[in-house]
Amino acid sequence: MLAEKRLPFDLRVEKVWERRPEYLEMNPAGTVPTLEEDNGLIIPDSAVICEYLDEAYPDQGLLGRTLAERIEVRRLCAWFDGRFAHEVTNNLYGEKHLRRMAGRGNPEPAAIRTGYTALRYHLDYIGWLAENRKWLAGSMLSQADFAAAAHLSTLDFLGEIDWSISPAAKDWYARIKSRPSFRGVLADRVAGVTPPAHYTDLDF
Amino acid sequence: MLAEKRLPFDLRVEKVWERRPEYLEMNPAGTVPTLEEDNGLIIPDSAVICEYLDEAYPDQGLLGRTLAERIEVRRLCAWFDGRFAHEVTNNLYGEKHLRRMAGRGNPEPAAIRTGYTALRYHLDYIGWLAENRKWLAGSMLSQADFAAAAHLSTLDFLGEIDWSISPAAKDWYARIKSRPSFRGVLADRVAGVTPPAHYTDLDF
Repeated sequence: MLAEKRLPFDLRVEKVWERRPEYLEMNPAGTVPTLEEDNGLIIPDSAVICEYLDEAYPDQGLLGRTLAERIEVRRLCAWFDGRFAHEVTNNLYGEKHLRRMAGRGNPEPAAIRTGYTALRYHLDYIGWLAENRKWLAGSMLSQADFAAAAHLSTLDFLGEIDWSISPAAKDWYARIKSRPSFRGVLADRVAGVTPPAHYTDLDF
Repeated sequence: MLAEKRLPFDLRVEKVWERRPEYLEMNPAGTVPTLEEDNGLIIPDSAVICEYLDEAYPDQGLLGRTLAERIEVRRLCAWFDGRFAHEVTNNLYGEKHLRRMAGRGNPEPAAIRTGYTALRYHLDYIGWLAENRKWLAGSMLSQADFAAAAHLSTLDFLGEIDWSISPAAKDWYARIKSRPSFRGVLADRVAGVTPPAHYTDLDF
């Protein structure tokens, strides 16, 4: 979203499982991301950051113009960061990968099965949205597309997505990948993980 | 929040575990609440509803005026509806009471222990906020107070809160209970549940 709004920024890694006191002071919930502005303003929580960015930098607005558009954008953001995160990302990233990276032992097989089942189901829903609308929340690109892409690119980086499940979802994601704002995401790497060959390919 | 903004409304019960198709069409996530406007606009998800209410009815604004105030209000709302809900409400209401009401068997003792431990810890945090600020997010009453009160009044109705843990949290909650907008909440009843004697008492 920062890149889409052409706001320059630096990224810093935070290993949240280390629970650094300096970080918990910025964000008592201990979650990532937290945004730190040059003027000292601290903005924790991805949903709070997204609301803040559209209020502080209203150009290239990504929340929709009408009340109805904004309801649908926020509904989908809440759905991806709530239900999709809970059923898919927390299982296929949190349980399968992050648990080991954080030295918290082996993954739960049941959690991983739940994750794959929910992913198939939810990819179908994304495909349905993509078939019936230009972008996920309607006719304009919005925070909802980036909320969805944040989860899907994380899972795709880890090789967890079978895009043949939904050609419409794949086509939507190809359009997101092609945006200049997404280049930084696709170039980003995590030590010790090699993404699949199609990860950066715009015509995967 | 509707009452605080003096917007008249009717309440309807939705047994979400029955997953009524008509309700899922209004709100695919299947969560409560969903707000239906007289003009037909459907607004699902409590956080989406709260953002909508402050945009559609800006009088008696409850999100804060400055960017910094709005960050803090949204941070606390996200914290109560995220972490507090996950660690406390989902365990002491969802696991201990709702599970039985929904006919899904007996509660998990470990979940209930987790809930009580987290509740003590988080009541201290609420008390700390209440001691250092007029209202939870700062000098003005905000959505954060209602997000907190929504969770705490649910738990208090079920007799799950030992207010002696934090006199400052208790004092803040007494001020919330005294607001005319809270009368409807305190008068609301659930079939088969008798709240403790102090539940409606404004000087509990």
